[in-house]
Amino acid sequence: MQMEDELASIGAVMGASWAGRKAMTATSGPGFSLMQETIGWGFMTETPCVVVDVQRAGPGTGQATKSAQGDVMQARWGTHGDYAAIVLSPNSAQEMFEFTIRAFNLSERYRTPVVLLADETIAHVRERVNVPRGESLEIVNRRHPDPRDTRFFGSEAVAPMPAVGEGFNVAVTASTHDEVGMRFTQGAPVHRRMIEALNAKIYSHASDIMETERHNIENCDVGIVSFGCTSRSVYEAAERAETAGVRVGYVRLKTIWPFPEDAISVLAKSANRIIVPEMNLGQTSGEVERITGRKVVRLNKIGGGELITPEEILEVVMRAS
Amino acid sequence: MQMEDELASIGAVMGASWAGRKAMTATSGPGFSLMQETIGWGFMTETPCVVVDVQRAGPGTGQATKSAQGDVMQARWGTHGDYAAIVLSPNSAQEMFEFTIRAFNLSERYRTPVVLLADETIAHVRERVNVPRGESLEIVNRRHPDPRDTRFFGSEAVAPMPAVGEGFNVAVTASTHDEVGMRFTQGAPVHRRMIEALNAKIYSHASDIMETERHNIENCDVGIVSFGCTSRSVYEAAERAETAGVRVGYVRLKTIWPFPEDAISVLAKSANRIIVPEMNLGQTSGEVERITGRKVVRLNKIGGGELITPEEILEVVMRAS
Amino acid sequence: MQMEDELASIGAVMGASWAGRKAMTATSGPGFSLMQETIGWGFMTETPCVVVDVQRAGPGTGQATKSAQGDVMQARWGTHGDYAAIVLSPNSAQEMFEFTIRAFNLSERYRTPVVLLADETIAHVRERVNVPRGESLEIVNRRHPDPRDTRFFGSEAVAPMPAVGEGFNVAVTASTHDEVGMRFTQGAPVHRRMIEALNAKIYSHASDIMETERHNIENCDVGIVSFGCTSRSVYEAAERAETAGVRVGYVRLKTIWPFPEDAISVLAKSANRIIVPEMNLGQTSGEVERITGRKVVRLNKIGGGELITPEEILEVVMRAS
Amino acid sequence: MQMEDELASIGAVMGASWAGRKAMTATSGPGFSLMQETIGWGFMTETPCVVVDVQRAGPGTGQATKSAQGDVMQARWGTHGDYAAIVLSPNSAQEMFEFTIRAFNLSERYRTPVVLLADETIAHVRERVNVPRGESLEIVNRRHPDPRDTRFFGSEAVAPMPAVGEGFNVAVTASTHDEVGMRFTQGAPVHRRMIEALNAKIYSHASDIMETERHNIENCDVGIVSFGCTSRSVYEAAERAETAGVRVGYVRLKTIWPFPEDAISVLAKSANRIIVPEMNLGQTSGEVERITGRKVVRLNKIGGGELITPEEILEVVMRAS
Repeated sequence: MQMEDELASIGAVMGASWAGRKAMTATSGPGFSLMQETIGWGFMTETPCVVVDVQRAGPGTGQATKSAQGDVMQARWGTHGDYAAIVLSPNSAQEMFEFTIRAFNLSERYRTPVVLLADETIAHVRERVNVPRGESLEIVNRRHPDPRDTRFFGSEAVAPMPAVGEGFNVAVTASTHDEVGMRFTQGAPVHRRMIEALNAKIYSHASDIMETERHNIENCDVGIVSFGCTSRSVYEAAERAETAGVRVGYVRLKTIWPFPEDAISVLAKSANRIIVPEMNLGQTSGEVERITGRKVVRLNKIGGGELITPEEILEVVMRAS
Repeated sequence: MQMEDELASIGAVMGASWAGRKAMTATSGPGFSLMQETIGWGFMTETPCVVVDVQRAGPGTGQATKSAQGDVMQARWGTHGDYAAIVLSPNSAQEMFEFTIRAFNLSERYRTPVVLLADETIAHVRERVNVPRGESLEIVNRRHPDPRDTRFFGSEAVAPMPAVGEGFNVAVTASTHDEVGMRFTQGAPVHRRMIEALNAKIYSHASDIMETERHNIENCDVGIVSFGCTSRSVYEAAERAETAGVRVGYVRLKTIWPFPEDAISVLAKSANRIIVPEMNLGQTSGEVERITGRKVVRLNKIGGGELITPEEILEVVMRAS
Repeated sequence: MQMEDELASIGAVMGASWAGRKAMTATSGPGFSLMQETIGWGFMTETPCVVVDVQRAGPGTGQATKSAQGDVMQARWGTHGDYAAIVLSPNSAQEMFEFTIRAFNLSERYRTPVVLLADETIAHVRERVNVPRGESLEIVNRRHPDPRDTRFFGSEAVAPMPAVGEGFNVAVTASTHDEVGMRFTQGAPVHRRMIEALNAKIYSHASDIMETERHNIENCDVGIVSFGCTSRSVYEAAERAETAGVRVGYVRLKTIWPFPEDAISVLAKSANRIIVPEMNLGQTSGEVERITGRKVVRLNKIGGGELITPEEILEVVMRAS
Repeated sequence: MQMEDELASIGAVMGASWAGRKAMTATSGPGFSLMQETIGWGFMTETPCVVVDVQRAGPGTGQATKSAQGDVMQARWGTHGDYAAIVLSPNSAQEMFEFTIRAFNLSERYRTPVVLLADETIAHVRERVNVPRGESLEIVNRRHPDPRDTRFFGSEAVAPMPAVGEGFNVAVTASTHDEVGMRFTQGAPVHRRMIEALNAKIYSHASDIMETERHNIENCDVGIVSFGCTSRSVYEAAERAETAGVRVGYVRLKTIWPFPEDAISVLAKSANRIIVPEMNLGQTSGEVERITGRKVVRLNKIGGGELITPEEILEVVMRAS
């Protein structure tokens, strides 16, 4: 369905999801900003859906088809209030395919919007994709209620979800509500219980959600943290640095949010310096600094869709070693 | 002007600002989310304006008139791309008045949207306000171009701003543009230069923008970082702790973004433990941890508009000391 | 599902409908205006759905809970381009119930948005409603495609409609498209064929869609055309006029659009004068004049939700007789 | 100013207008639909502004750059409630220029949104334009209040309009309000008085607003009513018909709304048949029928931007004569 703007698109996604279907929409920065209120609606109503944000150079309309990685923090904090975001970051055409399925699986399992945070480079790259036979794919579907179920919200263990029109008595509101959907806009206990449950259902399963690609993280002098298209330059830079005798370890974020703290903590124990190359003015860097408690070496590049090259990373690695 | 929704309101604000007037709109969480795209538009086009976000319990519609402090990170990261936010946090009726003027002054001086991030408690508190005589108020107006000026964008020193209809030849676009307003959506140099200038015009003046209230920050055992309504409980808790012999220092954030790193670094040098009480699940806390490189003691409370009391803070202070 | 604004609501309705469910949203004037673009989207994509517009005093926000009948022409012409509207007008609580079902039936049968145009009086009236047993209700469901069907659009006989996710290859766009959903934005033939089919599927079934309540239309001196809450005053006025010896005929519009031309033409042949009482400045009046080729007696009243009384109508009837 | 969507654009226009500037935005069908709520806001708050709708083939996205004339009725009835629309229709590049100025003049004089309803053909036609010297142009500016004025709304004689920020005490709301801007959402008298005044300020000046081009309207066998690009084919068809001995009269609508009833009534008295060629399925036709009380000969053509040719009109003229 091609809607007329992003407000209509994300609305249609929520409607389709509550009608019992899996639904997805794709956009880039400005559209992603316009969707923020409804994404919060989806978090609060526990609506499974997938939003693809193909990052391009912002802010504003910026450079419309030029690759960038500047929406990392927005994907975590773009809507108001205390919510938890699940954000995946592919770095190949193969992963665009696989992570889309994974995004749906996570959204169905945890009943929450999931963001597939691509960048223009990865979204448009032309590569061979291995599409497995249908039966070998893992497909997760939301848990359906039993006929007598009445509690459809606010469980850390993820409540079952009826479809509209099936005969369940369910009110769906982004106002604070209890487990049966009844609004409670006065008083602390219900609000506290629900918001904590909505966050806990994600954070208590963080180890299931967080995925990283790791290389030598326990045994390196220089560590690199990267994601998306930039991580492909890291592969080559690491190889060349190792050829030159520098022990490089890296964490590549397949899941950006929840932020994979454990892998990065391990890397930080081993590495003397941590380099964070990213196509923005330093967003992931701040998060790595928060976790590791020390300054990282930032390598930032923006504009025109120009990628950070292996040479640029290698140069920083060699200086840092 | 009472518009029909938040999209129209923030649009009207931008229109009025380019027509040469000072313009402001006020909203709370959901409306603030809906405004995010246009706030990015304002950053990119360097449009002075003030957005008041009176925080209430979110996410979603949440609890509509219940105080909260959950939009701190959104106020910094809510729109896409690399931008810099100026965000002020009043803690009294007097400051609601003064910071509104200050928000306008900063927006006019730096030609950028400024957020007045209140919470429901401070926005509705009933207190005596001292309104100074007009002539004693500092009022900043945007710099007006000379008749021969042609460069209206992208200066770290802040470019002059014509009003629409005055006869200047000016195109206003949130696409990447050069100093005269010409779109450049290909190529890195213009984008890099402009985005760096837009961020630098704020960060290079951070010391002018950042304001804090400080108490004993160089000479304390326990430090507290707070803002908004919560900071008023800190005053009393600190007093009572000191009476009990605990040396307490605190930083109260009058400016939240850019985040006042210097004051907090000083506090961190002196204090053994830093406590961050806030009416959310821990947003400022993360930022303090990033800057200080160590874990803080979090004191969080959400729901029903219940404030964090002096007793609750005092208890944590005594345990931490 | 309670969405955050009307743009999101109508988007969610479209999403749910293409996910295979029946979907409805309710609003009043300002929200109805905001939905106009997406209602056109629904017409063009042949999306069954129901929009309830409870008319109140406009334009703008007007008087928010005060009854009015001022959206008659907007319900027909509110979105752009050549489209056909189906609009129903209940005049009792019983009909609010029955016409809602009928609106769904018409929307499913003709695959098009249907508007239930109530007024605040009828929407809030408190009356006994007879709810028939489920099995005695006529429920129409959209025609589902056979597995080999590939033509899902643009048939005067109404094409079958797949649900998204069932495996049919279907693109849904409000750009001009052919019977299989392929976009054709150049050239006249496809556009002409499709737009004519979309209009014809409604107008060629107008006799199935148009419903009126008729009284003495072939045998009267004075005719009255009315709808909604106003028609209830007509009942009493007609009775009293007849008691006074005036032969009164009336047409009550249960369907407003397509406009029931035949019934009104019959009335016009018999009646010397036609009176059109309505709570607006004269919208239905114009249409009656267009059809009958003569001026009608207008009886208009707006503001404060004040109804047109039987006495007011009676007075006009007596003067006209 | 290039805003991110039509909601933002029309909002910015209203903001700029209340900031004291003349403001305009341009769009086509889908954007025009999206603007409908705010256009009603502008009518109710008496905000001078100009909206250009360049008609293309709808409904929905339709055929995006293909000429059409399908928004005639929407331009009159697109928003809710009882309002009066001023809509101009140019038929040359020269008139695009002149009518834009005229649209501003009318909007300033009557404090109301004015629609310049072009079609894609006229908006993109390449013709010599005669731009007169500035001093010879008639430029109307809104009436400014005297310092002691307090009544800024709801006068049939058009109230003076302050700019925001000048120090006048003025509330601007699209809710029903009285002459000083005070909201009155209960009770009939204020609503009735204001809505009648807002409509009367336009209809009582209809003779100043309505403009037509007339040819032989008192002395013809066949009459033609047309507007926009179609009227250019009428010129040639009329000439050729007259050469063939058929007396042709025509009215070309320079103002479409308020609909020029007088000119058309005169034409109808003289002509035996009235032909209405238009690039839609028959919108103006209905209005001509309403006024003249008889059926017209409709000549409709849609799709692909194909114009109605002089030959097509000529053929209908010859058959009708």
